[in-house]
Amino acid sequence: MPNPDPNPFTNTNRRPAVDGPFHAHEVGLALRNSGILLEALRHEVTPAGLHYLLSHFDVPYVPDGTWQVEIAGRVRRPGTIALEEIKRLPSRTLRVTLECAGNGRAAMTPRYPSMPWGHEAVSTAEWTGTPLRHVLERAELLDDAMEIAFLAIDRGFDRGHEHAYGRSLLRPTALGEDVLLVWAMNGAPLLPQHGYPLRLIVPGWYGMASVKWLARIEARAEPYDGFQQVSTYRYRPVPEGPATPVTHMRVKSLLVPPGIPDFYTRRRMVEAGPVAVFGRAWSGGGTPIARVQLGVDGHWQDAHLDPPQGRYAWCGWHALWRAHVGEHELSCRATDAAGETQPLTQRWDSGGFGNNAVQRVEVTAR
Amino acid sequence: MPNPDPNPFTNTNRRPAVDGPFHAHEVGLALRNSGILLEALRHEVTPAGLHYLLSHFDVPYVPDGTWQVEIAGRVRRPGTIALEEIKRLPSRTLRVTLECAGNGRAAMTPRYPSMPWGHEAVSTAEWTGTPLRHVLERAELLDDAMEIAFLAIDRGFDRGHEHAYGRSLLRPTALGEDVLLVWAMNGAPLLPQHGYPLRLIVPGWYGMASVKWLARIEARAEPYDGFQQVSTYRYRPVPEGPATPVTHMRVKSLLVPPGIPDFYTRRRMVEAGPVAVFGRAWSGGGTPIARVQLGVDGHWQDAHLDPPQGRYAWCGWHALWRAHVGEHELSCRATDAAGETQPLTQRWDSGGFGNNAVQRVEVTAR
Repeated sequence: MPNPDPNPFTNTNRRPAVDGPFHAHEVGLALRNSGILLEALRHEVTPAGLHYLLSHFDVPYVPDGTWQVEIAGRVRRPGTIALEEIKRLPSRTLRVTLECAGNGRAAMTPRYPSMPWGHEAVSTAEWTGTPLRHVLERAELLDDAMEIAFLAIDRGFDRGHEHAYGRSLLRPTALGEDVLLVWAMNGAPLLPQHGYPLRLIVPGWYGMASVKWLARIEARAEPYDGFQQVSTYRYRPVPEGPATPVTHMRVKSLLVPPGIPDFYTRRRMVEAGPVAVFGRAWSGGGTPIARVQLGVDGHWQDAHLDPPQGRYAWCGWHALWRAHVGEHELSCRATDAAGETQPLTQRWDSGGFGNNAVQRVEVTAR
Repeated sequence: MPNPDPNPFTNTNRRPAVDGPFHAHEVGLALRNSGILLEALRHEVTPAGLHYLLSHFDVPYVPDGTWQVEIAGRVRRPGTIALEEIKRLPSRTLRVTLECAGNGRAAMTPRYPSMPWGHEAVSTAEWTGTPLRHVLERAELLDDAMEIAFLAIDRGFDRGHEHAYGRSLLRPTALGEDVLLVWAMNGAPLLPQHGYPLRLIVPGWYGMASVKWLARIEARAEPYDGFQQVSTYRYRPVPEGPATPVTHMRVKSLLVPPGIPDFYTRRRMVEAGPVAVFGRAWSGGGTPIARVQLGVDGHWQDAHLDPPQGRYAWCGWHALWRAHVGEHELSCRATDAAGETQPLTQRWDSGGFGNNAVQRVEVTAR
């Protein structure tokens, strides 16, 4: 039998999938990282402190002061740019729904031992910053710069690899008008845990692309091969098999569990009769939501969609459920304008990424 | 064998203690409730969104608007008082460290199945509000009013009992100058999850006393017997045995884990040599911290205490660790001015309350 807890600083093996009860390390990650409370889906823009949060390593302690970003690699004018200088470039505010690529991991059977998200790793905020392209244009990308890498200051080990968090984007993506260097969230300075003083926001993508605590931008003629780019955040149907990069969010919807909960099990109780059910739906890459259905005990009815709140923001929806006394299962299913629909059962991935299966909520009506 | 998941709406039994891996319901609670990130102990006042949070039921959705509190029971002038009226009474701002009474529960063996806190359910904020006594004096307590009960709007089931969250204080405690009706946190309006628009803050007590979403204040000639007062938040060495109410926080200290972490196990790696170790210590009831010791592999050295930041706020401390290459265990131990010292091993309680045993952090030096 293998050592259940080999040296984490040297062991490069993938952790084997597990089933059933949760390991203390999974609980440790659940205690560190936080999701939205599903009842807070009522808020169009997620209030401070309720936005989901996934940090691989420690949240850096950055006392107030100067911050600068190094611009390096395949540019004509390498150097540093001060945050204050970045703030003087033209800025935009975008309402963006972000979701962790591992959202839904704990609902998979078996599951990859990592952050055991249920459905709560999604939120919406208004991000203010300057389009990254302004900084890249100032630095003058060389013709062979095919990728832009983003390096942060949070550092640690993962599967035996010591590294600072880093990700890259292909040049055409990085030059898009909506990729932002961000210093404000919901009209206030970034909170420490959301990347203070400067972070990247890549709308339409899963959250791993939106690098926090950004310290270095590197134009590259070769693909970026950092751990977070090539060794994780890849869809792998088989643990050591072929891999596809995780990019845009998949279509998904959630509902606010109606009624009142039981403290420990979170089972729900409602009064029989008409129950207003409310939720949100979103997809990736700026694709609008075309349809949301509310499922009651396996029967589907169309929900009403609220007016869109921006290309990258989730879409509110509501439906009326006439609840009869007894036990029920509610669910919801979104379809986007590209015709993608949420699967009814788990979408398996060996690393626990991209599971956009429908949420199911058990409710007792009395 | 008992049904592992009986009807939560009717089953009034205490859950049996467990050991080893964690149940999905415990993980569900860890996903809903959030602790401070230990590295955020660096901040004297915990930034928004990093303050620990324990909500028994759903966080109420309170759209902006009017709010009023009902004053009832053994008072000469019952009625309602509007929040805007409360805000016109004299106000104070207090820096207060709050800790959940269940902090340290997951470190107990065996443990009670509930919110599986490690050490992270503690934070410090600046709370602005009016002393409760101003409102009680306006209402004119009758002579036989021996307890003041505080009823909130969050509602649900716990061990088969349906109730809104409520707690009480004895009259002399409630009339203390430092018990506040609070509408602002760290200079900003209360966040929804911290009790918007009005909550109680009872400095020096574990967090359960500081009722959020406060809607009703009831002066009573008889003891308040709500579920959260009599059926939980009691120290019980034996599950069905005699019980003592949970009140003031016990003396405790934490350290910021030094170095860098491994993502999954959170094991720490530091460079050998001098390592500055930083932490916080606090006690209950306004008792100051007298001493903090840093433990390295079981050897204790005195830490330096920072100047106090108020009667109810934690106290910073720091110490120097000369790390030699190899495996180490760091710990810290506080003693308060009343002579209470943290125990080195778990302080057993059948409900998982009040475990102020020392934190232990495994660190590799290279």
